[in-house]
Amino acid sequence: MKVGIIGATGYGGLELVRLLSSHPAVQEIQLFTSSEEGISFSAKYPHLTTLYDQPLEAITKEAIAQLDVVFLGTPSGISGQLIPEIYNEQTVFIDLSGDLRLKNIENYENWYGKKAAPQGLVNRSVYGLCGWNDAAIKEAQVIANPGCYPTATLLSILPLLQKGLVKHHNIIIDAKSGVSGSGNKPSQMTHFTETTEATTIYKINQHQHIPEIEQAIELFTGKVEPITFSTHLVPMIRGIITTSYLQVESGVTEEQLYRAYEDVYADDPFIRIVPSVQKLSTNQVRGTNYCDITINLDARTNRLTVVAVIDNLVKGAAGQAIQNMNKIMGYEEQAGLKQVPLFI
Amino acid sequence: MKVGIIGATGYGGLELVRLLSSHPAVQEIQLFTSSEEGISFSAKYPHLTTLYDQPLEAITKEAIAQLDVVFLGTPSGISGQLIPEIYNEQTVFIDLSGDLRLKNIENYENWYGKKAAPQGLVNRSVYGLCGWNDAAIKEAQVIANPGCYPTATLLSILPLLQKGLVKHHNIIIDAKSGVSGSGNKPSQMTHFTETTEATTIYKINQHQHIPEIEQAIELFTGKVEPITFSTHLVPMIRGIITTSYLQVESGVTEEQLYRAYEDVYADDPFIRIVPSVQKLSTNQVRGTNYCDITINLDARTNRLTVVAVIDNLVKGAAGQAIQNMNKIMGYEEQAGLKQVPLFI
Amino acid sequence: MKVGIIGATGYGGLELVRLLSSHPAVQEIQLFTSSEEGISFSAKYPHLTTLYDQPLEAITKEAIAQLDVVFLGTPSGISGQLIPEIYNEQTVFIDLSGDLRLKNIENYENWYGKKAAPQGLVNRSVYGLCGWNDAAIKEAQVIANPGCYPTATLLSILPLLQKGLVKHHNIIIDAKSGVSGSGNKPSQMTHFTETTEATTIYKINQHQHIPEIEQAIELFTGKVEPITFSTHLVPMIRGIITTSYLQVESGVTEEQLYRAYEDVYADDPFIRIVPSVQKLSTNQVRGTNYCDITINLDARTNRLTVVAVIDNLVKGAAGQAIQNMNKIMGYEEQAGLKQVPLFI
Amino acid sequence: MKVGIIGATGYGGLELVRLLSSHPAVQEIQLFTSSEEGISFSAKYPHLTTLYDQPLEAITKEAIAQLDVVFLGTPSGISGQLIPEIYNEQTVFIDLSGDLRLKNIENYENWYGKKAAPQGLVNRSVYGLCGWNDAAIKEAQVIANPGCYPTATLLSILPLLQKGLVKHHNIIIDAKSGVSGSGNKPSQMTHFTETTEATTIYKINQHQHIPEIEQAIELFTGKVEPITFSTHLVPMIRGIITTSYLQVESGVTEEQLYRAYEDVYADDPFIRIVPSVQKLSTNQVRGTNYCDITINLDARTNRLTVVAVIDNLVKGAAGQAIQNMNKIMGYEEQAGLKQVPLFI
Repeated sequence: MKVGIIGATGYGGLELVRLLSSHPAVQEIQLFTSSEEGISFSAKYPHLTTLYDQPLEAITKEAIAQLDVVFLGTPSGISGQLIPEIYNEQTVFIDLSGDLRLKNIENYENWYGKKAAPQGLVNRSVYGLCGWNDAAIKEAQVIANPGCYPTATLLSILPLLQKGLVKHHNIIIDAKSGVSGSGNKPSQMTHFTETTEATTIYKINQHQHIPEIEQAIELFTGKVEPITFSTHLVPMIRGIITTSYLQVESGVTEEQLYRAYEDVYADDPFIRIVPSVQKLSTNQVRGTNYCDITINLDARTNRLTVVAVIDNLVKGAAGQAIQNMNKIMGYEEQAGLKQVPLFI
Repeated sequence: MKVGIIGATGYGGLELVRLLSSHPAVQEIQLFTSSEEGISFSAKYPHLTTLYDQPLEAITKEAIAQLDVVFLGTPSGISGQLIPEIYNEQTVFIDLSGDLRLKNIENYENWYGKKAAPQGLVNRSVYGLCGWNDAAIKEAQVIANPGCYPTATLLSILPLLQKGLVKHHNIIIDAKSGVSGSGNKPSQMTHFTETTEATTIYKINQHQHIPEIEQAIELFTGKVEPITFSTHLVPMIRGIITTSYLQVESGVTEEQLYRAYEDVYADDPFIRIVPSVQKLSTNQVRGTNYCDITINLDARTNRLTVVAVIDNLVKGAAGQAIQNMNKIMGYEEQAGLKQVPLFI
Repeated sequence: MKVGIIGATGYGGLELVRLLSSHPAVQEIQLFTSSEEGISFSAKYPHLTTLYDQPLEAITKEAIAQLDVVFLGTPSGISGQLIPEIYNEQTVFIDLSGDLRLKNIENYENWYGKKAAPQGLVNRSVYGLCGWNDAAIKEAQVIANPGCYPTATLLSILPLLQKGLVKHHNIIIDAKSGVSGSGNKPSQMTHFTETTEATTIYKINQHQHIPEIEQAIELFTGKVEPITFSTHLVPMIRGIITTSYLQVESGVTEEQLYRAYEDVYADDPFIRIVPSVQKLSTNQVRGTNYCDITINLDARTNRLTVVAVIDNLVKGAAGQAIQNMNKIMGYEEQAGLKQVPLFI
Repeated sequence: MKVGIIGATGYGGLELVRLLSSHPAVQEIQLFTSSEEGISFSAKYPHLTTLYDQPLEAITKEAIAQLDVVFLGTPSGISGQLIPEIYNEQTVFIDLSGDLRLKNIENYENWYGKKAAPQGLVNRSVYGLCGWNDAAIKEAQVIANPGCYPTATLLSILPLLQKGLVKHHNIIIDAKSGVSGSGNKPSQMTHFTETTEATTIYKINQHQHIPEIEQAIELFTGKVEPITFSTHLVPMIRGIITTSYLQVESGVTEEQLYRAYEDVYADDPFIRIVPSVQKLSTNQVRGTNYCDITINLDARTNRLTVVAVIDNLVKGAAGQAIQNMNKIMGYEEQAGLKQVPLFI
């Protein structure tokens, strides 16, 4: 199989390269760029010396047409315009950006502040939340790969919402992310000196992942109410932890809640439910496609705390993208995704 | 003035030494220890070479009796038993641990899992939340200095609760702290290799600061309902950020909410209200006694997000302790506390 | 193939587990402990949940006898005493500690301050510096796996010494290491609060890797003079960078020096020579068995700077141990070691 | 006294603001910028809210003429051209950049790759290495404030060179710095994701501080030979540690070496000689003007290791600049510089 990566020099692209290198079915990886054509990949990223010394290629419709799968790791606002230009019906397109996720394109333009993709392309795209949309994913030719925050949030709260164990009302999600989610372009917000030794709340009530989470709650549980969702930048490279606060329906027990997860995720190799712990940490999934989840139903308040951890670059981006590829192409679900977490 | 520090080698003690060194009224600082008597302070902490080469002293009732003020920076479970042994009526006792905070000593024993201080001592102690309990603080001889998490939380939500602008119902507080809050004793939880590059939720719904926050809400606003309060460990030395989720009373505007803060904190030199920002960061108060607060009333949900940042070792411990001393002794409130934040 | 790990809960052990999990020939990994028998491995290390839920086993001669290869990831002072107790002639023993490295056992006792292994066992051990001792390694039954600092140092300076391009006189090596080299046992030296935001020189002129480097220089180049070798602790988890200062023989050019590396390492899949760069960084090899090397011959001083970077837990420990196993067992040299560096 | 800071928004400028705020003689601090005129300082740097809400001012000859002292915290290449334009004879100019340090202006242009300051201005400038050039400093009107690396290096090796205890031949200095030395402008080299968890050697044998160190060795000891000097970037905000390798003259003892430091620095409040330790760490001077020094004369090699730690932004920049101001203006040497190190 031949795959291509558009935007290979971004962090999503780098992570695709890392993971696809161990994928048994991938014979060739082509690396595309819109701005650094001809430059050797390893000259830009010395860690790839001897592994990917090849030059970055220009994006052409012809080059894309020869690929089985192409991943787009471009910043928001690019792929929605680019895919129509390079589209063909034989290649699978998996877009890691937010461009194809929101079905309501006005919503996209309001939250992202950018021109939306054509409505037709958006309609054809399948939201690639593995474990929740698998029937559609298997038939898809264009995947809107979920955002990092939505992945952790949705995987951890959807089972309880779908089974009617918790209320849709008054859902509050407090999320914390490592800095790699901001990408490889330097800015004041990611300048080492001002980022390390600091935790920062940002985009208060304005993060573009809010409408994505709400759309998915509606899609997978049949209804939705506006959520409160906060994002914090934490001085680490990788990892997201989401702490969600939910109200259980009357009489629901912690045991019932755990059983809901087990029902939904019994066959999922990447979801690990960790019951009855007092501690959950992002480094227990680092470098892997795992999503670890625990809950605590507080006897004092009868409110529920749901915690999920993922690696934002893997399960929250490149890993889930490969998982989507595996589902579409009929490969083993864990192909290319068997890493043991890099706890230290 | 002569002051003493019991538990000088802990991080609270170290920070008291740092701040008191610039206090214009402090002529002498005596350093006490229960276990390292005779050891030179700078031999243990080389950063104090030439500044505090003096030996650590044993704790005796006689030595304490010669001090104007003694600070206790001991771990929980110590000062509640120690103060009765070294007590005299002329010395001011300021306890940085949790031992004297909870008026209900059964509550203390349940949440801390340790033997409570005598009820009489607890009764005599004044909760030293500067800006909220000042009349009592000025008359106090024994201060229960507030916890780090409660300080950030209470300073940021009390004005709105007190003025009836937000509901007491369904208060959710999501807190994130640097590692120095765990003290100077090495453990797996604070081992560099496992702590850096990780964010960890811990003590889910079980943190001992929960009853302290609830007690203070009742004390200063007249009523209380059980809160949900979560704590996360973030890989930085100093800093706490609390993100609180509140429901406003019908018709309340963001402007009214800001006015409430201005009313309450107009003369407070350490509270900085930062309106209309999308970003608040722990490093904007590092090394200082400031508490910076911002809010965001979300038009979509009508729910309120309240954010506060403090330095856990200063406003959350040693700085507020010195502020309490200043109030009791009649010094200028900012004496010893005029540092400019160490943003980088 | 069945392999075992003694001291599986240490960082060397954890890294062996991570890497061996992707080794095509390893069918079973048995985990041994001297102190935590019966405890589930994933209960201790939650990142291994669903992967290694098995209990840790007691170390017995019988259990070891059923293994093809056993790795010892124990602290110094253990394996030298333990191996004689569990020894058999069919199992390959690969010791990651320093116990079997120094041929002169008095030297060991002086530098390590511990009881040496029996001289017979030391004699039988082969120093497993891949690329330099391969003939002996292939025939070995007991491997003394090189130390982390010696690996980076030796791989980068031996080719030049061996070919007579630089002097043996006045060799100075300045090494910097991440914190994982200190192991998983918490101490003040590795306490997050005191370790992050600090760089520390330690064991000045007293590091136990000094005699190991000198012994290897003599072994592989035929002569040696005392070296100066310094170690610094840097606030990162993984990585070693060694900066070595050497004097070139008269008339030697930079081109000749690079050619020496190419001659020696032409077929080595893990050594990457990076010519003419102004920058070399530990994260370009993170998580992998690579050793990247660059040099700079200063025209002003005619002194040579040689720089090497490795991941101390991989090339500096578990990775080279597996590479040794591959050589002994006749596997492909890169089996289990094909990871792409985790640059971010 | 009125002081001004040109380039106030750089890290040197920020640190001057922090330290000058506690200087007893400074009544007013004016903040100048070439590009952000009119912007409130605290709008750019929220940590200065309520402290420095004033707008940044344009740089004019008239404004400068009303100041007693002006500090220039501009990047290299600016002050050398700017000072002639704003010069007057009554104001003291203290330049934190490298523009006025090298007496040979060709040397400047070769190492810095920028246009040099006029030779006349360079001639008039005094190299402000406190403790070594004090007679000239006290009479100076223009100070070339030393670089961060040269300060740590020179303070630690000059006493031994000057007293003839060590050779001028074959001096090797291996330096490691925190990231704040690179300034506040974001770049790939200081991007959090690529900087944290990495140690990087950079500008191998090409750092512009090399000629500065050599010039100072000649100035203060009467002779010089080319040095080898390496720089490494370490993932921490502040701090420099220099490890220097020297050859002692025949028969010299460690005791004699320590005595040399004591002779030279007996009255220096900022130099702390720490004998017979095995460990020296940058965090023991953080936030302060201290320079801590230790040495180790290795009995095996008879080579000497000299280690120094400073805070690069204080002793290596703003702190020494204020110390120079104090010397020129006749203030107490420690005025504004009495901070206790922020060890944690």
